Formats: sequence, structure tokens, C-alpha cells
Amino acid sequence: MKISKLVAERTKDTPSDAKMRSHILMLRAGYMKQVANGIYTLTALGQKTALNIENIIRNEMNSLEGQEVKFPVVMPKELWDLSGRYSSIGSEMLRFVDRTNHPMLLGMTHEEAAVHLAKNWVTSYTQLPFMIYQIQTKFRDEPRSRAGLIRVREFVMKDAYSFHMTQSDLEDYYYKVHEAYERIYKKIGLKNFISVQSDSGMMGGKVAHEFMLLNENGEDRLFVCKNCGFRANQEVAECVFDENKKEDCLPLEEVFTGEAHDIEEVSNLLKADQKKCMKSVVYLKLSTKEPIVCFVRGDREINEVKLKNLLKDDISIYDTHGDDRFVAGNIGPKSFGDNIEVLFDISLKDLGNMIVGANKKDYHFKNYNLDRDFEGKINYVDISKIQVGDKCPHCKSTDIILSNGVEIGNIFQLGTKYTKSMNMLVKTNTGDEINPIMGCYGIGIGRNLACVIEENCDDNGICMPMSVAPYKVEIVPIRYDLKEISDVADNIYKSLEENNIETLIDDRDAMPGVKFSEADLIGMPIRIVVSPRTIKENMVEIKLRSSGETFMAKIEEVVGQITKTIQSSI
Amino acid sequence: MKISKLVAERTKDTPSDAKMRSHILMLRAGYMKQVANGIYTLTALGQKTALNIENIIRNEMNSLEGQEVKFPVVMPKELWDLSGRYSSIGSEMLRFVDRTNHPMLLGMTHEEAAVHLAKNWVTSYTQLPFMIYQIQTKFRDEPRSRAGLIRVREFVMKDAYSFHMTQSDLEDYYYKVHEAYERIYKKIGLKNFISVQSDSGMMGGKVAHEFMLLNENGEDRLFVCKNCGFRANQEVAECVFDENKKEDCLPLEEVFTGEAHDIEEVSNLLKADQKKCMKSVVYLKLSTKEPIVCFVRGDREINEVKLKNLLKDDISIYDTHGDDRFVAGNIGPKSFGDNIEVLFDISLKDLGNMIVGANKKDYHFKNYNLDRDFEGKINYVDISKIQVGDKCPHCKSTDIILSNGVEIGNIFQLGTKYTKSMNMLVKTNTGDEINPIMGCYGIGIGRNLACVIEENCDDNGICMPMSVAPYKVEIVPIRYDLKEISDVADNIYKSLEENNIETLIDDRDAMPGVKFSEADLIGMPIRIVVSPRTIKENMVEIKLRSSGETFMAKIEEVVGQITKTIQSSI
Repeated sequence: MKISKLVAERTKDTPSDAKMRSHILMLRAGYMKQVANGIYTLTALGQKTALNIENIIRNEMNSLEGQEVKFPVVMPKELWDLSGRYSSIGSEMLRFVDRTNHPMLLGMTHEEAAVHLAKNWVTSYTQLPFMIYQIQTKFRDEPRSRAGLIRVREFVMKDAYSFHMTQSDLEDYYYKVHEAYERIYKKIGLKNFISVQSDSGMMGGKVAHEFMLLNENGEDRLFVCKNCGFRANQEVAECVFDENKKEDCLPLEEVFTGEAHDIEEVSNLLKADQKKCMKSVVYLKLSTKEPIVCFVRGDREINEVKLKNLLKDDISIYDTHGDDRFVAGNIGPKSFGDNIEVLFDISLKDLGNMIVGANKKDYHFKNYNLDRDFEGKINYVDISKIQVGDKCPHCKSTDIILSNGVEIGNIFQLGTKYTKSMNMLVKTNTGDEINPIMGCYGIGIGRNLACVIEENCDDNGICMPMSVAPYKVEIVPIRYDLKEISDVADNIYKSLEENNIETLIDDRDAMPGVKFSEADLIGMPIRIVVSPRTIKENMVEIKLRSSGETFMAKIEEVVGQITKTIQSSI
Repeated sequence: MKISKLVAERTKDTPSDAKMRSHILMLRAGYMKQVANGIYTLTALGQKTALNIENIIRNEMNSLEGQEVKFPVVMPKELWDLSGRYSSIGSEMLRFVDRTNHPMLLGMTHEEAAVHLAKNWVTSYTQLPFMIYQIQTKFRDEPRSRAGLIRVREFVMKDAYSFHMTQSDLEDYYYKVHEAYERIYKKIGLKNFISVQSDSGMMGGKVAHEFMLLNENGEDRLFVCKNCGFRANQEVAECVFDENKKEDCLPLEEVFTGEAHDIEEVSNLLKADQKKCMKSVVYLKLSTKEPIVCFVRGDREINEVKLKNLLKDDISIYDTHGDDRFVAGNIGPKSFGDNIEVLFDISLKDLGNMIVGANKKDYHFKNYNLDRDFEGKINYVDISKIQVGDKCPHCKSTDIILSNGVEIGNIFQLGTKYTKSMNMLVKTNTGDEINPIMGCYGIGIGRNLACVIEENCDDNGICMPMSVAPYKVEIVPIRYDLKEISDVADNIYKSLEENNIETLIDDRDAMPGVKFSEADLIGMPIRIVVSPRTIKENMVEIKLRSSGETFMAKIEEVVGQITKTIQSSI
């Protein structure tokens, strides 16, 4: 491809809020162009890289006996009613009516479509396990698209669905996919990634892992134990506490605290450690519309994902002002009525002589002891966020770190949520009928493309890994207007293309400095410089973008040299 | 792939209205499954075939220096407002608002997106010509989806856009794409196709061709001259008439015709040839909301596409009942008022002594002569449909045929409609700025897949061409339960897969008859039968699905034989 014809707008203008290197570089190097908020066109540079990533994924999926299918983007409401997700998913799912007024949606994931496809085909256990996957465009009406291809509204995703007779068969397959994912990331050029236990969210099911690229600009917050290697998303990591030493109970004391309402104000006023205060947070349960009161140690925060999972319900923060069952700002443990659940985080267990709200305007209690002072059953649950200094739930070491990360893939053990609700039945070898157990496995192509650039770049631009580079070579002729230069450059170009080595040639009448800096910016792995000085000696210069390594090659040996370089680096 | 695991529901149930063989066979053989009206999931059989077709198209596009990009499916209204198409396209375009109430649409075609991508990049004539293309899912809210993948609502399409400095450069490129399309169709296994001049419809521009598969169930009606090869869609084919001999004008005569209103009734009543009658059809122009009166020879029909193109406006049939400017059933030539246009088809030119409506209830005129009796300017235009027996507009032969066809691709010379409306400017070599001239080129993947099957099947099922077959070989072991059989079959399977020859193996415990008939149905090009009888002689039977040719091969020579067979048939 001639650079003069390559539709790729190289620009110095990047959005002022662009923080991630991949976002800035993909715009500056012309890998993509924004069309709307969270919606991009990929140029040939972007799309050819994406296709290379897709093919690496495709090969790994095929190696797991995956069958590539294609589900529709547009699906009818009825199909999603079967699983209940048409109503349970919020406005990130795009819904519309077609010209006959039929309700339709744009699929964000295809569990229902997968069951629909396989359901009538499958009758006997001899047909399982099997896995079907697709690579397809998806749309998610994301409220906060950001960071270029990292969080978009329209994206291409590989989504796979496996079906099994037993949980152990699912688990075997699940860990094979886990390994395949690790191979995929390594092949496309990612290094700094881990897999973490995750929340299974709207997908249903229990065991799930997210693959995370560790990156300071990532949105996800990860917990990693440096001692045993255990890792989890901060959202779901279990909290483990030392047993608190029982203190002698001191007499309960009501103290005036006036305008001091939050933990910081109260602990400052009473000169107490936040760990000796009890924090209250009131939520509203979506299904019952009733408040739920949560208490947690003053130095910790409620983890809403854990709470949602515990309640199996959606929640929102509840404003207690104006609800006369509560004294806003002075809420402490008590029974608030039959319909109001009260939960205590396990961080509070056995803590004695606490400062708590007195459920009376302007007052708190000192020396509150749950065992002594709370009437009713005490319900201890794990609903707080893990913090630095906490113990690893696995090995109990405190050598843990919290790091930001970008999700680059996820795998879920779905169980029978979809096969049960859609009544997919398979005969076992004893003649019984069961609902098969599903797994599902996703990788976003565009986000991985961005992550490849995130991890493979320097101050001068992108350093495309050989495995996914849109072109393997860029030829930079100095003085392309001179016939002796263009003849050599064009001949090398032709020979490389004939050997199926995709090549860019900078055929423009531009200054060498411009050509070099743009070649660095768009970042093809191998650069060949054809200059008047070296061709006199029948030589050209070959430079590797990533290592900076430079060497000379005889013109007639260039193709052989390049072929060797490519083979050794894939 | 083991057939026991291949998710592909083979069924005898096909929709009762399914007429096209491809529709019936793709359902029966499990190439696809319907999800909603005009929306299908492709199984591995369907999707692998589609991917093979995509790659053949991709290679041809790349050979024309096409750059593969990816435009978004979802686009904002503003982009389509620039070209005016947001309002000019009807309800087949799906529109919706996103969560911020912003109007969006699902793209059916991407001229605006192509100009958006290239517009800021291009500045100088040295960057042209160039072509960008994508292979992407599209949605068209089709009112009458039919015939399986032939007319659907969701489909994958290759759409390409070229940009040129001059009309002659566009034309050169346009005909190169024309040739590439012919190569694509031949490569994927289509034989019976032609290209015809077509209406450029909503795309704008003038010259356009449709590639048509001649097929009795096709929706399009094609005109082909057997003498000179000229061909066109019946919708746009120019009509050519012999000069009519001038007759002596007879005296105008008013005759009572009572309830006889249409041409058949009037010609029967007056015992006249329909060719001697003048037919009137009244339309309403969309932009002016005024009627327009068209006259045509009694034996011919108005071609509404030609009329729309002539008027550069949309039209609908106008009911003249209740409009006192017209006498419904007795309309004849006259002036109907300042705002009402009157058009005469060229079939009427120089015809004398005609029967026409008298614009008076229950009466017609005999011996009406336009030259003598019509007051005002006579506006002859070409607005009738070409018919069998008409002359070829090119060579004037009457040896023409009309055939049904399925559109399998189209190419358009777009002109500057989009570059002008979106203000894309390029400097010429003299420093002037012009709007580049565009071409656009589309092929629907799914429809071509259906057409491949339409042309490559017999009474027993599909005969997949080697070039696009999802698997090249199916191994049919007889008595797979016998170890000596499964060993041989599995070994051949393994060797073929190791040689990158994608293979199906029927590993089921089923009757040979079932295996053979299903192998015929799904139609892989090569079948290998491993049977107890032949393996005694160290042989297997190889059968070619398409020709029925059968030969024996030594077990150790199978892979070599198959490789040779595949190479000789691609």
C-alpha cells in the first residue's frame, strides 16, 4: 500500500480529555476516526490489525473444537423474554420497534440466541459437550464512553457458548478456555495481564473470571496477593478480619454531637478512632421498595456489588430525610420495623464500646456493645470493600496490592439459567432429561486492539507487534523523486508483496524527517530505508521499530532478511 | 468436525411458502435457523461458507488496491442530514434515539461515513484515486422479507467506495470493478449471471449496473437482447418504437360507452385493437401534491420507475373520484388546469384516429388525433415498460427476452452527490478545488451464499462448490462402532486436518442410508466411504458430490488423492 493513498488522517489534535496512550496514538496515527460519542470508524490500519487479532482468536477457538456461527445483531423481544433479561437489563440495551410495531433489541450478548440455535438440535448426551462462537458487532448504549476503543458503544466481540452434561465437564472446559485466553493475549502482544475472580453481573451463574490488563488508567480496581498470587476484582474480593479481642463492656452513654453527622465529624468531635465508630448506610431494595440498613466499621466502605449479590436484588442509596422511621445523621443500630432489614458487616464482629448513632436528633451513643445493646438477631455479612492492609482471603497474608486494570476478556460458568428458562433438555445415558450446563466466554476485539497499543508504544508512537501488525514493513525512500531511489524502493516493495509480506511504501515527496517521525508514529515493526548514500554500496538500512536494532542488508538479500526477521518474531 | 457435535438442525420442516431451492435446502440441511421475520442465525455450515465467500471478495477488492476499513453500524442523524438522506429514505431505515435522546440510525449503506472518513485526510489530487471498503452487518427494515437469505432484514454486505478526480478515471475504475465482480461470481460457483443497466434509486448518480442471477424465482424482471447482448432491468430499459405511419384524419366522433371504463372494456365494446386506444393513468406528485396525467398506448403499461426518474420526485397513484377536475373512467387528453402536468408516452407518437376518453361521463371519442385535437404543447416522454416483442434500444433487434433474476451485486457511478453536500474538496494540479467523483460497489454475502446453493444443488441436496465449501471432505464410516473401521476413519480424518483440509466425519451410530442421504443433503464436495468391505482390500471409496464420479483409493494414498482433487477443482 502506498502511503499517499492510505486513508488515515494523521493528526496532532486529540481530545483534551484523552488520557490513555492508546486513545491518543490511535487518533494521532490515523488508526481510527470518531463518528459519534463512543462510535468509531476503523481505517485500514485499525481494521487490518483487528482482523489479525480476530484470526488469532479464531484459531484458538477452533483448537477447542469451537464452531464459528453468526447470530443476528437484531433480535425480537420474545427471545429475551424467555430468560427474563428483556426487562432485567437497563437502558444500556437498545430497544426499538420495527415497522410493524414489533419490539426488537440490539444484542449485547447472545446466550438466548445460542440456546435457541442448539435447543432443537440437541437430544442426547452423545452430542455434548459442544461450543459455538461468533465474531460480531455489538451495541451497548454506554452512558460513559471513554478512552477511545476502551469503552465504546459499538464494538466487535468474540462471544462463545459451551454446553455440558456435568459441572465437572464444564469446569474442565472452562479452564481450557482460560488457558486459550492466556495464549491469545500473549500472541497478540500483551504482557502485563492477570485473571481475577469477578462478579458475574447480569450474566447469571457463579464462578467467573475477568482477564485484566494492569494499567494505571484502567477503570477496574483489582486486588492481588503478592504472597500466594490470589487475585480478584475489588468488587467481589472476600474480606477476612482478625478476631477482635473482647473488651469489657463500659456503661452506655448518650452524648450530644449536634451538627456532627458523618464518621469523620463524629470521630473528630469525640476524639475517637474511626475503627471505634459504626457507620450506617441506608439503601432501597428495588423489588420491595423497602429500605435496608447496613452497618460497617467506620474506616471501611460498603461494597455495593457484594450487597446486591447478597440480596439478589438491585439497590439504590436511600435518602432518609423526611422518612420519620429514621433520624438522618444519627442512625444507629435498632429495629426499624418489620419490613426493614438490618445488616452488620463482619468487620463489626466482637467490637466493643463503639460510637453509634442514638436514633435521636443531635445525639450519639458511646460504649455501645452489639451483644449487650442490640435487641434482636445480629446478622453478620460480608459487605465491605477490601482495602490495602487487609488479609488475603486465600493465604491470609497482608502483602496485597490494589491496582487499576482494563478488562480484556471474561469467562463465566453460567450454570443452567438459560437452558432452564428456555427449556432446553438433553437425555442422559440413563434416560433422564436434564438442562445442560453452560459456560460463556467473551473477548472484545477493539478493546484488545487498544490494549495492544497501550502496551506496545514509546514516546515516538506505536510499536506494533509482528503478530498483529497491519503491515509488517514500511519502506521509507529518501528522495523518492530520484529514479535510482524509486526503482530500488519499488522493486523491494514488489518483491515483498509477491512474497505475501504486506508492506507500506512512503511514496510521498516529503522531508526525510517527516517520513521517519510518521513511520515511528504508525509503528510498523520493520522499517527499510532506501537512501542515495547506501544504495551506492548496494545496501539498504533495516530498523526494528520495537528494539531500535539497526542493520544493513544487500538489496538482493532484503526479502530473505525480512522473511527471517518476521519468522523469528512471531 | 464430528457430525455428532455439529450444531446444525437437519429438518424436514420448511416454511410452506418456501419456493426457492436455496431457502428450502439451507433450512433442511441446517445451514441456518430463523430467529425472526427476515432474521437468521448462520450455523457453522452457513457461516464458514459465508467466510469463504468474504475472503474471495476481500482478495479481489485488495487486488484493486482497496483498503479494508470498518464503518459503524450505528450512526448519528447529523451525518445523514448532510446528504439529505435522513429524511429522504423511508421506514426501511431503522431510526431510534439513544439514552441521551439523540437521534441515531442503523446504516444500510455508508456513503456519508466514507466521505466523513476521507474528507479531512484528502487535500491534493496526488492522493486520488483511492478505494475503501468494508464487510459489515447491515439492517434494513424490509417490509417483505422472503426466500430465506435472498431478502432479509439483517445481512452482511461488502460495500466499497472509490474517489476520483475525473469522470473518465471513475469510469476506468468502475469497469475494473465490473470485471472483478465477474471473477468473484465465477469463483464462488455462479454461472448463470449477467450484468444489467439499472436504476440508481436512492443512491443518486446516473450510470449503475446490477449483477443478476437468472432465476425463475427472482423478484427482478430483466430485459436481455439475444442479438447484441444488451441487457437492462425492465424498470429502466429504454423503449424504442417504429415510426407510426400517418393516417388520414377522420372526423372526431363522440360515442356512448356507458359502464365501459378500462381499456379492455372499451376496446371490446367498440371492437377496436387496444393499440388504437389511449390509456390514462393519474399520479400524485409527492412534492407538489398535484396530479399528473399520463397517457400511454392501450396495450402498454406505465413504468413508474422511469416516471419517477423523469420527474425527479416520488409519485403515488391518484384516485380521481371526487376530484371534479377529472371524469373518472372517461379521462382523455385535454388541459386540466395550470398546475396539472400532462405527459404522453412516445408509444403514442403519430398514432391517428384513436379512441380516447371524452372527459364526459359515459362517453369516449373515436378518431382522436393528437396533432389536430389536442390544444397545447404535446410532451412525448419515455415512460412505458419494455415488453417482449419490443426492439432492443441498442441494436433494434426484436430478439429480446424477459427473464426473472435475483440481484447479486450492484455498482454505481455516484458522481458528486455526497462530496458536494458534505463539502469534500481536493486541489487539482492547477490549484483549483473540486469535489471528487465517487463510485460505490456492493455485494451481499448472505444473498450470494443462497445463490451459490440455488445454482449448485440437485434433487438430493446441496452440491457445494469446492471454493466456498465449509468443509471440503465428509468421511462416512459404515459401522463406526467397529474398531477396524473407526481406526481407519479417524486416521484419515486426522491426516486431512493436519494437512489443513477441513473435514467432517460422521461419527454417529446411524444406518448407512441415513448417513449417505444426509451427506448428499449438506453437500460437501468430496465424500470418503470407509466400509468393512473395502478396507479388507486396504481401499476406501471416494465420491465427488457434484459429478457423482466415484473411484477407489488406497488408504495410505487418500490424503494425496484428496489434495490433488481439491487443487484441480478450485
